[in-house]
Amino acid sequence: MTQNTAFNQAEFAKMNEKTLDSKLKSWVNVPQNSDFPIQNLPFGIFKTNSTPRAGVAIGEEILDLSVLEEAGLFKSLDIPLKGVFSQSTLNEFMKLGPSARKQMRFALSGLLNADTATLRDNAELRKKALVKQTDAKMLMPVQVPNYVDFYSSIEHATNVGSMFRDPINPLLPNWKHIPIGYNGRASSVIVSGTNFSRPCGQTKADTDPAPSFGPSKQMDFELEMGVVIGSTTELGQTIPVDSSYDHAFGFVLLNDWSARDIQRWEYVPLGPFLGKTFATSVSPWIVTLEALEPFRIAAPVSDTPVLPYLNQKGLNNFDIQLEIKLKAAGQSEDLTICKTNYKTMYFSAAQQIAHLASNGTNICTGDIYGSGTISGATPDSYGSMLELCWKGTKPIVFADGTKRTFLQDGDTVTMSGFAIKNGVRIGFGSVVGTLLPAKI
Amino acid sequence: MTQNTAFNQAEFAKMNEKTLDSKLKSWVNVPQNSDFPIQNLPFGIFKTNSTPRAGVAIGEEILDLSVLEEAGLFKSLDIPLKGVFSQSTLNEFMKLGPSARKQMRFALSGLLNADTATLRDNAELRKKALVKQTDAKMLMPVQVPNYVDFYSSIEHATNVGSMFRDPINPLLPNWKHIPIGYNGRASSVIVSGTNFSRPCGQTKADTDPAPSFGPSKQMDFELEMGVVIGSTTELGQTIPVDSSYDHAFGFVLLNDWSARDIQRWEYVPLGPFLGKTFATSVSPWIVTLEALEPFRIAAPVSDTPVLPYLNQKGLNNFDIQLEIKLKAAGQSEDLTICKTNYKTMYFSAAQQIAHLASNGTNICTGDIYGSGTISGATPDSYGSMLELCWKGTKPIVFADGTKRTFLQDGDTVTMSGFAIKNGVRIGFGSVVGTLLPAKI
Repeated sequence: MTQNTAFNQAEFAKMNEKTLDSKLKSWVNVPQNSDFPIQNLPFGIFKTNSTPRAGVAIGEEILDLSVLEEAGLFKSLDIPLKGVFSQSTLNEFMKLGPSARKQMRFALSGLLNADTATLRDNAELRKKALVKQTDAKMLMPVQVPNYVDFYSSIEHATNVGSMFRDPINPLLPNWKHIPIGYNGRASSVIVSGTNFSRPCGQTKADTDPAPSFGPSKQMDFELEMGVVIGSTTELGQTIPVDSSYDHAFGFVLLNDWSARDIQRWEYVPLGPFLGKTFATSVSPWIVTLEALEPFRIAAPVSDTPVLPYLNQKGLNNFDIQLEIKLKAAGQSEDLTICKTNYKTMYFSAAQQIAHLASNGTNICTGDIYGSGTISGATPDSYGSMLELCWKGTKPIVFADGTKRTFLQDGDTVTMSGFAIKNGVRIGFGSVVGTLLPAKI
Repeated sequence: MTQNTAFNQAEFAKMNEKTLDSKLKSWVNVPQNSDFPIQNLPFGIFKTNSTPRAGVAIGEEILDLSVLEEAGLFKSLDIPLKGVFSQSTLNEFMKLGPSARKQMRFALSGLLNADTATLRDNAELRKKALVKQTDAKMLMPVQVPNYVDFYSSIEHATNVGSMFRDPINPLLPNWKHIPIGYNGRASSVIVSGTNFSRPCGQTKADTDPAPSFGPSKQMDFELEMGVVIGSTTELGQTIPVDSSYDHAFGFVLLNDWSARDIQRWEYVPLGPFLGKTFATSVSPWIVTLEALEPFRIAAPVSDTPVLPYLNQKGLNNFDIQLEIKLKAAGQSEDLTICKTNYKTMYFSAAQQIAHLASNGTNICTGDIYGSGTISGATPDSYGSMLELCWKGTKPIVFADGTKRTFLQDGDTVTMSGFAIKNGVRIGFGSVVGTLLPAKI
């Protein structure tokens, strides 16, 4: 361990400022507009052979943390790593807590700094430690004990309420008081690039005399951010809203795939179930809370005060630009169908975590809590096909006349996101998925 | 390994008959009316020191499977055990599949048979392998990847629909077509005997101008059975209804604790969330499918045909007698407040599993799927306080005049269950929990 990467309390305290130092450069080539400059350093799990291991993204490369640990480069850090980077998920590393994450970021920032010779000038180690992203397969970054999906965009809730209930009073009475959410299925959370088949299920149109069973005809996506929990609580413990982010490791992009026709017939009175449980996709790189620190922003102003346990003082929203591209089956090009921003959320992830834990349920390392569909105020910023095509009435039209109101087999949905300030771009990469034909 | 416990295909085929051979006796003392005769042999995880390990219940003892494995008693079995009984959950054993479970039952039945000398006459090994249940602490038998709660008792759904919606049309249009269910929270599934605090949460009575936050005032239980999944499926795979039980390891009793006032204010439109996620209790012994085989029974006849994917040919309900006892805080005696039977369920666990997997979601070893509250036709067979006291209007009255409409701090709820035939009682033990005061 060289002096450059040794843990230094004073330097460490300045980490957040450094994050946005646009002069900070890495000796690893980082192309213009890369999502992964030295200021980002998101964590993920990848493989190039049969062995999954942990890495951070830098430019178009992955820095293999298992190789660095083995080479003894983290020895001077005060973190009991014990092979956490050679595991198939980040959970064991995440369990070491926020201080370990911050120290590791600091050490890696030092190692990758253009002025640091340790790895830069060690050709043999560098060759082992740097892997091209195009040569690697990204895996699920965490094992997910609990997946929860919230519903905290007022524009989304208003759109859905207008379509299915009452355009005059689209929001239910509880909506502005509670970050409404429900438990999802943890085991079908899959990493970007994992394609899946169109689900079958029961559906019944209002005019049908009885339900029928078959492939969903109303396949949709939902653009969300997911907060990934780092530090657990014990059953019975609650979390003050302004301490919520002490328990967060970072964020991912999340696509809450939805079969609207299945959902519609099943969801009363106990909520969405099989219309959602077939697949939920997440981006492979967890962007840390520290990397996002400079992009904190206040939540939109509300006319309705929340109860004290949800009353946040901090800037708990994040200014993250989001985009959805759709590639229709057989088309050669993507069409951008939505541009929106995570900052528009009515309830922050901090409020969602505080609410979720307010009854004493335990939160667990690796839990992922989806924000809810992120829709903006204008029709080109809606985060689902249901809203973009307004219940099938306004098709998306491609250049050659191809139309979509819901997804067809072979369609590919790509969601991406980044934050930018002072020319520094902290990106999430993307979450991609292609809908395969139903297995019947 | 003696001849008695060696795997014998012909003997093995007769296992089900043997299960109900009331003449089959163990050399371990099994008191009259014990839940755990040699015909039962449920699996669980226990500890007497700091080391969790797997055992089966026999009479008032636990047979320590880790000791038997270590002593080489399972060597002749065709199962790659590799220390599965020395782990803190049964998951690794369960992953070995139904054949491993059946062989193990057969071997244990042989070892415990009154006529088998191997362990009976080996005082030293016997002393190490048998632990008094009163000397052991039972732990969660499985790590739970997904917890799902169904709603498949027609009497319960009718009661709830009558109370909160429409007494003339209490069932929603989808109810007889779909085993309605929702995802619960896996991490707060706790083992019997784990007490927990009354949860706080948002509530709002119809007459309140705004919601308030504080301890729930309407604490309830729900009597359920939980099916525990043994064998996983891959994402995209579905399960034919008559193969569902190939994926089941066994059953437990389940108490789906509910805070009715929190649930009522939060549950539209996405279903129950914090009104349920604070705790769900399960009994510690998983009674295997094989032990319950003789108690299979047809589901009640329905006036509404189900879709083919739910159309079961097998006898998929189980005749299991269930009971709830309530001990009010400060009382010295339990009061039996409900007697009902699992056989009354409108949808079987086989149908629930087939439905859950019908969209291709993956089921996982250790998943627990709750049946839904098991209510019978008469008011003394309702499985929740909500129904027993009919929304707080008909108090339960104890001998000394103490009354309850919902649970008070210090109240203890005990649910128990057993199946019986030819004098052989296959019991579940109990799931017990005491409600502690709110932490405020």
